[in-house]
Parts: sequence; structure tokens; C-alpha cells
Amino acid sequence: MLKVGIIGAGRIGKVHGESISKYVKGAEVKAVADPFLNEDIKQWAKSMGIRHVYTDYRDILNDSEIDAVLICSSTDTHSSISIEAITAGKHVFCEKPIDHDVEKIKEVMKVVENSKFKYQVGFNRRFDHNFRAAKEAVETGKIGVQHVIKITSRDPEAPPISYVKVSGGMFLDMTIHDFDMVRYLSGSEVEEVYAIGGVLVDPAIGEAGDIDTAIITMKLKNGAMAVIDNCRRATYGYDQRAEVFGSNGSVAIGNDASSTAVLSTGDGVVVEKPLYFFLERYMQAYANEIREFVEAIVNDTDVPVNVVDGLEPVIIGLAAKKSLMENRPVKTAEIKKAFGL
Amino acid sequence: MLKVGIIGAGRIGKVHGESISKYVKGAEVKAVADPFLNEDIKQWAKSMGIRHVYTDYRDILNDSEIDAVLICSSTDTHSSISIEAITAGKHVFCEKPIDHDVEKIKEVMKVVENSKFKYQVGFNRRFDHNFRAAKEAVETGKIGVQHVIKITSRDPEAPPISYVKVSGGMFLDMTIHDFDMVRYLSGSEVEEVYAIGGVLVDPAIGEAGDIDTAIITMKLKNGAMAVIDNCRRATYGYDQRAEVFGSNGSVAIGNDASSTAVLSTGDGVVVEKPLYFFLERYMQAYANEIREFVEAIVNDTDVPVNVVDGLEPVIIGLAAKKSLMENRPVKTAEIKKAFGL
Amino acid sequence: MLKVGIIGAGRIGKVHGESISKYVKGAEVKAVADPFLNEDIKQWAKSMGIRHVYTDYRDILNDSEIDAVLICSSTDTHSSISIEAITAGKHVFCEKPIDHDVEKIKEVMKVVENSKFKYQVGFNRRFDHNFRAAKEAVETGKIGVQHVIKITSRDPEAPPISYVKVSGGMFLDMTIHDFDMVRYLSGSEVEEVYAIGGVLVDPAIGEAGDIDTAIITMKLKNGAMAVIDNCRRATYGYDQRAEVFGSNGSVAIGNDASSTAVLSTGDGVVVEKPLYFFLERYMQAYANEIREFVEAIVNDTDVPVNVVDGLEPVIIGLAAKKSLMENRPVKTAEIKKAFGL
Amino acid sequence: MLKVGIIGAGRIGKVHGESISKYVKGAEVKAVADPFLNEDIKQWAKSMGIRHVYTDYRDILNDSEIDAVLICSSTDTHSSISIEAITAGKHVFCEKPIDHDVEKIKEVMKVVENSKFKYQVGFNRRFDHNFRAAKEAVETGKIGVQHVIKITSRDPEAPPISYVKVSGGMFLDMTIHDFDMVRYLSGSEVEEVYAIGGVLVDPAIGEAGDIDTAIITMKLKNGAMAVIDNCRRATYGYDQRAEVFGSNGSVAIGNDASSTAVLSTGDGVVVEKPLYFFLERYMQAYANEIREFVEAIVNDTDVPVNVVDGLEPVIIGLAAKKSLMENRPVKTAEIKKAFGL
Repeated sequence: MLKVGIIGAGRIGKVHGESISKYVKGAEVKAVADPFLNEDIKQWAKSMGIRHVYTDYRDILNDSEIDAVLICSSTDTHSSISIEAITAGKHVFCEKPIDHDVEKIKEVMKVVENSKFKYQVGFNRRFDHNFRAAKEAVETGKIGVQHVIKITSRDPEAPPISYVKVSGGMFLDMTIHDFDMVRYLSGSEVEEVYAIGGVLVDPAIGEAGDIDTAIITMKLKNGAMAVIDNCRRATYGYDQRAEVFGSNGSVAIGNDASSTAVLSTGDGVVVEKPLYFFLERYMQAYANEIREFVEAIVNDTDVPVNVVDGLEPVIIGLAAKKSLMENRPVKTAEIKKAFGL
Repeated sequence: MLKVGIIGAGRIGKVHGESISKYVKGAEVKAVADPFLNEDIKQWAKSMGIRHVYTDYRDILNDSEIDAVLICSSTDTHSSISIEAITAGKHVFCEKPIDHDVEKIKEVMKVVENSKFKYQVGFNRRFDHNFRAAKEAVETGKIGVQHVIKITSRDPEAPPISYVKVSGGMFLDMTIHDFDMVRYLSGSEVEEVYAIGGVLVDPAIGEAGDIDTAIITMKLKNGAMAVIDNCRRATYGYDQRAEVFGSNGSVAIGNDASSTAVLSTGDGVVVEKPLYFFLERYMQAYANEIREFVEAIVNDTDVPVNVVDGLEPVIIGLAAKKSLMENRPVKTAEIKKAFGL
Repeated sequence: MLKVGIIGAGRIGKVHGESISKYVKGAEVKAVADPFLNEDIKQWAKSMGIRHVYTDYRDILNDSEIDAVLICSSTDTHSSISIEAITAGKHVFCEKPIDHDVEKIKEVMKVVENSKFKYQVGFNRRFDHNFRAAKEAVETGKIGVQHVIKITSRDPEAPPISYVKVSGGMFLDMTIHDFDMVRYLSGSEVEEVYAIGGVLVDPAIGEAGDIDTAIITMKLKNGAMAVIDNCRRATYGYDQRAEVFGSNGSVAIGNDASSTAVLSTGDGVVVEKPLYFFLERYMQAYANEIREFVEAIVNDTDVPVNVVDGLEPVIIGLAAKKSLMENRPVKTAEIKKAFGL
Repeated sequence: MLKVGIIGAGRIGKVHGESISKYVKGAEVKAVADPFLNEDIKQWAKSMGIRHVYTDYRDILNDSEIDAVLICSSTDTHSSISIEAITAGKHVFCEKPIDHDVEKIKEVMKVVENSKFKYQVGFNRRFDHNFRAAKEAVETGKIGVQHVIKITSRDPEAPPISYVKVSGGMFLDMTIHDFDMVRYLSGSEVEEVYAIGGVLVDPAIGEAGDIDTAIITMKLKNGAMAVIDNCRRATYGYDQRAEVFGSNGSVAIGNDASSTAVLSTGDGVVVEKPLYFFLERYMQAYANEIREFVEAIVNDTDVPVNVVDGLEPVIIGLAAKKSLMENRPVKTAEIKKAFGL
């Protein structure tokens, strides 16, 4: 039985804790740590059968019985805790992004590469049944040579402005998942990025120095092109679609809904809206990613999303940011070079 | 923590065991009993954290710590074990049907009605997200006055002939779920039944005295009409659709699929087939039904599917059987009268 | 250039006139006759380039230049005008039904069989792209051995009570199209019929001696079963669906809509309603049926819907009527025998 | 009765001729001219009831009875014939594009603006039922403030290389329709364009100096963004989709198919492919555009697609071309300035 510690008991930490309790065989959560430990967290831990509750994550790192940690704390602590955890001899699952700062990711990479411990990054969409069906169509050659990859990604509502301010910007916070999907679906790398964007949802987002709507086009190493359209707010719910089009045809994936019901009345023919947000849409994907993390440890196989997969979308995101600011296409090599990569 | 015993560790017994382990808070499986106890079952019980494994279900009934039992044994034992279990002071969840013989169901009813224990029957489709969405549309008045209820129910493959022989016939084995859905969706009772049927899938089913394809029409007490079409084999998978049509409009539910992927190539535009069979389609429904059974016990509320809900579809099934044999519409009152109901 | 006369300039007569003017090459409407000739009809005829307008249809029959007539007058005149027209040496296209009275259809049959002129009956759905796609799937063996044929047919609104009274009843007026579709899709004949029905839409329909909602099940000669559900009023529009299910799979056809637009807002995800009624849904089918009638004349080939195709649905309709009244399954042979067929 | 002359009897000239003969009341084609007059064209003209067939289009311009001409000749002749025709006192419907050369379009504009004759450009998609449904959703405020407009436009097969060479390039030949749709759906103008593209379908297209696949992003005057993805070849047919997303929600339109049939077998669930190409998909749109052209003449109202609508997509196309060559965003103002606009 693999013993797991969860660092950070916010929304996503709880999702992973519940996943392990319910869906992941061969693993159990032994301890959870959160600097803002309160009754809620304690209650939740108890209901999940988690025996230890700490304010200091070091109590988890110091527990030699614990094999693996899930880093679900705030983004600015990801890289340093990652390094501490590996150094302490733990396998690490780290929520995305590793950091907004490439230098810090490089430090993590160095430590990871010199260790024998697993390091997985939390790009949950790779474990979603729809994206996997698209990926499978690509990999089995049904699409042929890739021509165009399209991703639509819209949130049902914008995050609070306080969050926007520390989010690293929409490209590093939200689009980063879509950049990952471009890499995942194509199996290729992004060479050049061009981004346009604007503040169409809420002027306060603009005042916080960010945008809320964007279209990002990319040239890929394999010769294909990709395009992402993002918006922080879609009135009808979480919109997560993708298409891969190639020489043999196209695979397109749509949203999930809570039922297949079709209601036909004098007012119209109505189907269900997409599932509301990521917790509803990706709950099963979250369970799958932790299960595969556990399996990689138990079977000593490669993790499905490694530290390089954690770095590349940040590079693309920084290229997008630069492209938006300077209104020109930006090569990822330009970003990498600046960081000596 | 409610303690549960499972009687019968076949496919459906294991489904419920797994549901409780994974999805049902506040309950745990303490023991499982199966007359054909083997290593497989023992292994499975261990993996689920079930401590006790018996060959004799009476060991479960005699365990005073156990609050509730799930009867998942062969159909011919349902009614007698039901009575023993209630008499032993257990809440009972009994797989459908309670029995093929109305007299035996009556005996169970008498015992249930004179006890303070919960008795729930295993009509899992009432807990499916799609059927619930249809039911909700009906109950919230979106359909208006009901006119026509349509149910399509086709299995991906016929059961083995050995099973067909003891199944009670297609109407009591397979259609019984659809009869339950007619009652559930309409909130009304069936007054008259007319059935046509034939052996179109496999002559061996006919030789075993059964049919494999049928259309059953019904007149309901509320003035609406219903129709079910059944087949033991659909090449494309488990086909479970329904529609309720009324004065304000219609609600229709379709099948679930493993993904929303649409593959467009020179060969055509292809979408996913329906989920293969009941385990795939109704896994979440199975979890929901046990969860609601546990909640009914814990909160001392009415069970969502009671013993009358277990009786009525058998009456309808017998009327359908008689209708088929005599090629005439048969009133459910005629069947009930024969049993003094 | 085939010269055509139209007898009866009501809605359907005008539809055919317009079809010929616009879509049917090699044919032109030379004259139209209507006992209630008014300015509207005259104006319409002029706009269609129809040179002659009569009150008496005999003026058309007496015009030796006219090759073919379309009988679009009231149902009670269909059979007698059919006989007169054939006797006058015209090819005849007769709107459905030939008559409600089988004796009169028999008279028409006798005359048709002894003549060299074409006689086509107006079952327009056989010329609809969707029903044809279903038929093609059946005929090319994609469905395998037929098991179950299902037809849903609902009107957007009930006809006026004055019409209901002379309609011959819902089975002969509305369901007759669906009976024809059962024969068309199956390529087989109906052996036995059982019908249930009621007055759920409008009590006035019941007072006029008719029903407005029904489910009709049928046993077919080829071993398959069929079921039709009908209603005189569906709030969401004209609902015309069908499914043929067999040993290899199923083909299902749905409704047409005015566009593929999907509107997603906070209120829901809305698609277009079905096209409103038969004129919208079947306009192209009407053109096709007249085109094929003209082609059958020009090429001297069999008409696609012959006089037997006009008779059989009436027989089935009468069996359904009897079944409803006597609440028992009725063989079509019983009806035929009564008419010496 | 408006008298029309058709200049150029290629595929599109014939489409318009047939439309007028069949669908457009109040207009007739009196003459057709084609420099490569052959038996086929003569035969076709006869079958359409067109009385005069010329090799020289001037014979049409000289016929004072002819009110309007449709210019369906090769693109390089559009502008000069346009000017001659207006000067000769004809209303003009000119196929897209007016010219690849902005200077020539400017000349046409000057003549048009100084005349009292109608001048309509052949952007047929504005008359398609799906695009109109999307436009209507935008105009009635259902989408709210526009954020993102997305257009997918893929041909079922690449044109012959001989055509590619004189096509003006993919942006001016194919994407020009999509640029028009961005303007039509948004009701706004394009300010800046960025294009990426490549040769993925056929190297011969690259050798001919063109691309076959592209993604073009645009900033619009109204603050929204737009993106088009194009490909010269989609194995599954003509793919013509669009979406407008805004503050209130989204409207998306899909492809039309030849039927609604869904075939479910052991091999999968298959729906119809999109209609093969523009003649199938847009036949009704072609009829509508000519009908509205005729109506604009008869009622002396504005044409639905005027000479400015003919100019703007060429400007956008030239900006896209420049963007692709110089790999930078290009303002439409930059292109206009170069032409003194």
C-alpha cells in the first residue's frame, strides 16, 4: 500500500484526496498539510480516513513512511517544495504549472534528472476520455498526416480579480492546459507562436494587467498548424472542444453533459448544457492521473506527464505573452535561448 | 457506519460490493456469502476490504452487527431469503425480480408490511442520470399531460440458453425493467397489456420456450399509452432509449457513449457506439441505488423502490405473457384477480 | 412536352402545379379545374403559366391534348374521377386515399388493370430523402433480417373539426401514410393489426367520433413486427421519424430543420425545431413524386406507387379501426375477405 | 418580366441560368454568351428555354431588351466587362472576385457609384440558410457583444494545378468567401490580419507558388477577434462551419447532409457525410442570391452585396498574403494606403 501525503488542502488537494480514497487502489493518503489548517480541512480529512493533519508540509516530508507527495499548494511554492520533496526521497506529483519562472523550473529539472524518484506534472486533460479518444485516433493513423489542430477552451466564469493578479496571466494560468493539449494531441513541439487578445469580459481584468479573451496560432515542428481560442467566460458553461484534422480526415471532440435528454416544446428543442466547470468535467480525469502516477511508482515505469512536459507549455506561454505585447510572431527558441535552454 | 452483508457474489453482487467500497459513504461491507465460494471470490473480497467470507448466507443473518443485506443470489431464492432476512432483523435490498411467482411475492409483502425494516427492490434504471432527467421533465410539467411513453430496450447479445431456460421468460427477465420504467416515468399504473413477439435472433431461444423480440403496448390508468420494443441482440450494443410525449412537448433520452469523438473520413462520419452493456451503462446507477438504500436506513425514510414496485412489473409481465400466448389484450386486473390481489 | 391537367386547386393541387412549373422537366400544366373557382386560383394559375382554368374537370378530360391528370379534389370524388379519367384515356396521378370504401377502390383497380394508362397514388413520403435513405439501408442489406420497424408520426396541430368529420378517421386520413411507410420500408405486407387510441388532444375530436392519439402494432408477413405512434398535435412541430432494426443493426431517420444552428446561452443549448408541417418537410418529395410519375409515362415504366399500394393501406386502416372498436387484434385477411379480396 | 443575359456559360453560369429558370419568378434568361461556345452549351441553353446563344458577350450588351447581366466569365475579365455593362445601361451581377487587382476594382467602383444601375457581387454564402441563421442570432442580440468568430472552410478536393496558377492564390480564391463571412457575421471591418500557411496537401500546389492549408487570425474594428482555418482537401467532403461567440453565448452552424439517417451496426454508428461540394451545399443559396438581385432591381432597393463588399475581402486577402510572406501582422490600412484608399 503506497502511502501518500497531500501538501495543500484547497480545492484541488481535496479532489486528489477524494480520488485516492475512492478510486485508486494500492494507495492511501496518510497525511495532509495546509498552512491555513481549519476545522473544515480537519473534518474533510477525517471523512476521508486521513490520519494526520499538519500545518507544516515538512512534517509530511519528514515522515519516512510516506512514499509520495502531491503538491497542491499555491503556485509560487511549487518549485521549492518539489526540490525539497525529491531531496527528502519522495515521489512527487506537482500541480501545474511547476512555476511561472523558467529558471525555477530548470532547478527542479536538474534535481529530478539526478534523482531516481518519479516526478509528474498535473495536466489532467491528458487523462480525459474525450481527449484520449482524439489522441488515439491520431496515434492509430486515422487522421493521417496532421494539418490543423484546433482547441476551444472557455471557462464558465472569470476567476476573482485577486486571483487574476497572481495567476501569471491567462496564458500561463488557463491556456497552459491548451498548450499542453496541442503537444499531447500532436505529439510534436511548438516552434512559433502568435497571439492576439483583449479585455472583452471584464475591464477589471484589464486593470489587473491581464486579458480575458485570446486567439493563439502556432506552427509546429511536424509541419502542422494549431490554433487555440480562449475566453474567461462562456455563459453556457465550460467549453472544452478540440479537433485534429489531417490528410485522412478529422477527429473532433465535444463537451460532456449531465444527460442525453432532449426536450422539445413549442419554445424549441433543448439539449443539456456542458458540464459546469473543470471539477464536473474532469473529475474522472483527476482520478485517472493519480492512478497512473501511483502505477508509475509501483511498476517503476515512466510517468505519463514528466518534468519536460511541465516546462514546455510555460515556454509556449511566455512566447504567447511576448507575442501579444510586441504584436509579432515569437519563436519558442527565442524564449529558450533567453533562459540558456 | 452501517454494516452490510452481501448474499451471492456473482456479477451483480460484486458490483454492489465495489459500489459500497468506493462510492457509498457511511456503509461498509462486513461479509459476503456464496454457496459456490472460490478463490476468485475470496480474492475479490480481500481487495474490497471485506473481512468475512461464508458459504452459508445464514452466517450473515446470524451476525447481529450486520444491519442490512443485499440479496444477489439466484432468483428462485430471493423471496425465501428476503423473508428470513427481515425476520432476522435486517434491512433488505433485493435484486429484481423478487420472484416470478406472485404468491411468493405476496408472502414477502406480508412480512415486509408487518416489519419496521426497509425493503428495496433492485430496479437500477430509476437511478440512471438519463432516466432521471426524463422523469424530472415529466414531474416539473414540461411535458404537460402525458400522451405516449416509448421505451426501446435491446441487449447487445442474448444470454446463454441455460440462463434463458430459468429466466422466467423475456418479459419477466428483461422487459421487467422496462415495465418498471413505464411506471416510473408515468407515475401511473398499467391497466391493460397487449404483446406481440417472436424468435428472430436465435432459434434455440424458441426451443427453450421463450421469445427474443417483442413489442408490448399498454394502456395506463392516467389515460396515456405506452409501448416497449425489446430485442435480445443489437449488434451495435446496449440500446436504452425512452421518450415521454405529452400536451406540452416531448423529452427523449438516448444512450451514453465512451466519448464524444466524431471521426470524419472518406469512409463516413462515425460516432461512438452505445456503452456495451448494463455494467458499463448503469455502473453509476448501481452506486446511486445502494447509496439511497443506505440513506433510507440511516434517515429512516421511505425506500425509493419498495415492495409494491417489485410486485407490479411482475403482474404486467404475466399479463404480457398471457397476451402473447392468447393473442389478446389482457388486463392487469385479470392477473391480480387470479392471485386474490 | 407532356401536358398535364390538375383537378382540384386546393393546397395540394397548387403544390403539384408549382412543382411541375419549377422542378419537373418535360411536363407542363395546361389546365386546372376547380368547382370553387375564384380570383385567387385564377391569379395563381396565371403566375404558373397555366393557360386554361375551368370549373368543370370534364373540360380537362375532354381536352385530347392533355396526357395526364392529377386528381387533387376532395377524397369522395377520387375514385369516380379516376375511372372517368382512365376511360377518357388519361394517365392518372391520384392523391391518397383512392377512397375510404374498398368497393370503390376495387372498381378503380379493375379499370386500371384493364387499361394501358399509368395510375399512381400520392404517397409522397416514399420520395422523401430521409425515408429513401432508410429504405436504401434496408435494401442493401445493412440492416440484415428485419426485426422491428418503428414509425413516429405527429402533426403540429389538429385539423379543423369540420375536416375531422369527413376525414374517414385518423387511421385512414393520417396513419395511412405510416401504414404505407411500413410497407415501403419493409417491402412486406401487414398480416395483423392491433390498435389502441384515445382522445387526448381535443374532446371535440372525440365528439366528432374520432381519436387523436394512437399506437398501432403490426405483424408482418416477413416475420418482422412494426409499431406506429400517432398524435394529431405536437407542440414542437411535425415529427416524422422512423427506424428499421434488424439482425445487422439499425437505421434511424430524424426530422429536417431549417438550419443546423446551435444556440448556446445561459438558458440552455437550443437547436432548431423540426420543419413545421408537411408542406415544409415534404416539398421536395412532392416534386420528386410528380417527376417520377412523368418519367413513368414518358419511359413507359412501372409507376413507383401503384393501385395496389393505394389499396393495402386502406385495408390496414380498416383493420386498425376494427381493432380499436373491438379491442382485439384483427387480421388484414379478415378485412379482405369481407370485401371478397 | 426582367430579361437577363448570362456572360460565361461555365459551371457557375449554368447554375445561375438554371436557378433563374426554375426558382426566380419575374425574370427570364434571354441570352447566354461564351467565347468557347459548343454543342453542350447550346443544348443546355435550349433545355433552359434560352433563346439566344452568342460567342461575343457584346451581343448581350447591345440587346436593349436585356435589363441585367450576370458576369460569370473568367476572373481577369470581370472588371472590364463590369464597366462595359454598366456603361451599356445594364444592371450587373458579378461573380467574385471583381478582380485580384485593387486598381481595377477601384475603376469599377467609380463607374458603379456614378451610375444608377445595380451592381451585386457573388458572395453566395450570405444567402445560405445556415449562415443566415447565425447572422440572425447575432443581429437579434442573442450572442451579445461579439468576442470571437470562427470559420472552418475546407474543400473536398484541391482544384487542378492549372487553375491554382491563375487563381490569385488561396487567400483571394478560396478564403475570400470566408473573409466575406467574417464581415457578414460580425457586421464589422477587419483591421489587422496574421496568416500562417503551408503546403500539406500537394507539393505541386507549392511548386505553383501557392499554399493549400492556412490559419488566418484577424482583429476587427468592433473589438472582436476572428479566425479562419482553410484546407484545399478534406477527405470527408466540403466542410463549412462557423461560430460566433459573445458575451451572451454562442451560435454555431454545421454542415448539411443528404439525409438524417443514422446507421448503427457492429462496425459503429455512422451518420451522413457533409454534402460533397459547393454546388450541393449552396444550390439554394445561389438561387436566393439571384432572386434578391432581381428583387433589388425590380423594387429599386439596395443590393444585398455591393461593390464595397466586393472590395473589402480582396483587401483582407492581400493583407493575408503579405502577412504570410513577411511573417508579421499586417493592417488592412497598410494595404489600402498603398492603393490610395
